[in-house]
Amino acid sequence: MREVAIIGVGMTKFGELWGASFRDLGIEAGMKAMNDANLTGSEVDGMFVGNMSSGRFINQHHVGALIADYAGMASRNVPATRVEAAGASGAMAFRQGVMAVASGMHDIVVVGGAEKMTDVNDDATNSILDSATDQQWEASMGVTFASLNAMIARRCIHDGIATREQIASVAVNSHAHGALNPNAQFRKAINLDTVLRSSVVADPLTVFDCAPISDGAAAVVLCPAEMAKKYTDKPVKVVASAQASDTLALFQRNDITTFAATVAAAKRAYSIAKIGPKDIAVAEVHDHFTIEGILALQDLGFFERGEAGKAVMDGQAAVGGKVAVNTSGGLKACGHPIGATGVAQVVEITKQLRGDADKRQVPNARYGLTQSVGGTGSAVIVNIMEAV
Amino acid sequence: MREVAIIGVGMTKFGELWGASFRDLGIEAGMKAMNDANLTGSEVDGMFVGNMSSGRFINQHHVGALIADYAGMASRNVPATRVEAAGASGAMAFRQGVMAVASGMHDIVVVGGAEKMTDVNDDATNSILDSATDQQWEASMGVTFASLNAMIARRCIHDGIATREQIASVAVNSHAHGALNPNAQFRKAINLDTVLRSSVVADPLTVFDCAPISDGAAAVVLCPAEMAKKYTDKPVKVVASAQASDTLALFQRNDITTFAATVAAAKRAYSIAKIGPKDIAVAEVHDHFTIEGILALQDLGFFERGEAGKAVMDGQAAVGGKVAVNTSGGLKACGHPIGATGVAQVVEITKQLRGDADKRQVPNARYGLTQSVGGTGSAVIVNIMEAV
Repeated sequence: MREVAIIGVGMTKFGELWGASFRDLGIEAGMKAMNDANLTGSEVDGMFVGNMSSGRFINQHHVGALIADYAGMASRNVPATRVEAAGASGAMAFRQGVMAVASGMHDIVVVGGAEKMTDVNDDATNSILDSATDQQWEASMGVTFASLNAMIARRCIHDGIATREQIASVAVNSHAHGALNPNAQFRKAINLDTVLRSSVVADPLTVFDCAPISDGAAAVVLCPAEMAKKYTDKPVKVVASAQASDTLALFQRNDITTFAATVAAAKRAYSIAKIGPKDIAVAEVHDHFTIEGILALQDLGFFERGEAGKAVMDGQAAVGGKVAVNTSGGLKACGHPIGATGVAQVVEITKQLRGDADKRQVPNARYGLTQSVGGTGSAVIVNIMEAV
Repeated sequence: MREVAIIGVGMTKFGELWGASFRDLGIEAGMKAMNDANLTGSEVDGMFVGNMSSGRFINQHHVGALIADYAGMASRNVPATRVEAAGASGAMAFRQGVMAVASGMHDIVVVGGAEKMTDVNDDATNSILDSATDQQWEASMGVTFASLNAMIARRCIHDGIATREQIASVAVNSHAHGALNPNAQFRKAINLDTVLRSSVVADPLTVFDCAPISDGAAAVVLCPAEMAKKYTDKPVKVVASAQASDTLALFQRNDITTFAATVAAAKRAYSIAKIGPKDIAVAEVHDHFTIEGILALQDLGFFERGEAGKAVMDGQAAVGGKVAVNTSGGLKACGHPIGATGVAQVVEITKQLRGDADKRQVPNARYGLTQSVGGTGSAVIVNIMEAV
């Protein structure tokens, strides 16, 4: 198996981008990543696209071929593969890209993620998002992702895993970082009161506990590690990419105060990378809802069960803390254009490990991690990257 | 790169299966494939699912996690990845499975493909299918897949590449084979008159030039070739899996009487396998529309440009001919449950190479090929398998 390196990254601004189409966004991110890798484009021999639901958001399936076409890759018949796993779509596309290079079947691979969510109305958006729950046993009963996460939050509060204030502090941490990221959808620091006193979405979660609806795209370029220095002075190595599943429906779990798929994917990733959670300096985790941020920090092994919330309140998840979490602003403040998110997490970690993260830079970071979640922990991908 | 073998195959009957849900179909095919490979299930460490649009056909995204869950794989957190490429979804999932085993990242991988198309009305079906054309420049102008293929057929007739009767003979060939396949949707032989005199869909194509709307699923089990004999006496080796793209919209091509992506994917596949078209004894090709069957036979190199139609008329694509094409019945007669199709093609070739194809068996076949198309030739996968 060949070692794989990241040689270029790029992303669009995340937000309500009414002036840009899905294809505009995908191409902008891809071009930025290829420029960052000093490629002309003719070196690329494989593409992967993470996308959740262009089929419903913009009535367009087959977006692998679409992006290959508009990126000018069709003239050389460069293969492009679309991957979907709800909120983990981008991360899963990234893992397929890693596999493609590791296998020897491809050399220079562009992985892009994109979603254009703001071209439909709110009812349509909710119906699309909820179609990633178990349609037969959850969505058709009226369950939404917000209500599922509210149930998790209530159970965590009941079991003493985190207080309401500690859960809310995840949003405060993400917004503080997002304020420093020029690509973030929300660039405004907030305090606990803002979260606790805003409109309730699904009790106890308020609108500030939930990531926004976003447009955006992100891309990375991969190649065999031994070829990386040909393209960049600062390659970043992918030392592990692990994936795990859990039941699609939340009610089928024994314990909803942990995501077993995060635990399993993290265990596999640490084992492959031969490191532990204490070695991770910077992490991007899936805070689609603040409570997921709490679960991530304990399931990834950064903090003991019941300690994650306090740690975030104490600044241990900020730059300068024990592990810098969501320096991009996370899903909460950077935004969550679904298919793009997992790739954007890798973009942020790559920037951190190259020392290119400007005002939000974590000093001397050697290892960085991304955790991406599809559904309510039904599919999780954990990637570990290393500065070289 | 590790060599990859197919150790088990299974599929549901294809057709209007109103008594079975998407998950029922996926599980039935997967269980059959695992039984065929003599697996209990606990050996499986990776899954791939090909599906075009469960998000619209059954309002369910994230079907990788769904199938892993209902297959009992969630308890061991076995990762599952959904791949979409319109009509090539199943084939692309298969190629990702091959990559996963070749890379060393997975050992025993189940690749499934499934689509449940008959739960929505005809208008919805057409809208979903047409969303795999270029939405912005084709579908929104009223173009359908049938009309695109009718344009290709007209041009081929105009340029003397095939006559109307020769194009129709593709359906006759597929139906003759489908009559012998217990899993086929249509098990009735037809003659040229049936095709030529049935209702026009898009002139010159009639309803018998078009594959049906179908429900169904298919699955295969992959493992490293060196482990294959542990599970089966008759493994089949995957000697090449190649993929190529072309423009999403048909009007952007220089020549619509050939699919450049088929030519490119076939060239790559033959090169990897170190064989040529004359070595292929049996092939499953993408005859979603009869004209595509003609293009496939010339683009894969089985017959010269302008000779494929005559060859089919002369029985050279039947069992006993130069190359046995669509012994399953093809998309035309076996059926086309979109995400399942590319996997079902591999199921048929595997059965042929193992000598398990009963009344439609091609004698002494060593090499078999599958060709799968997404859109109007916008993404093509060519796989080559070898009996061992």
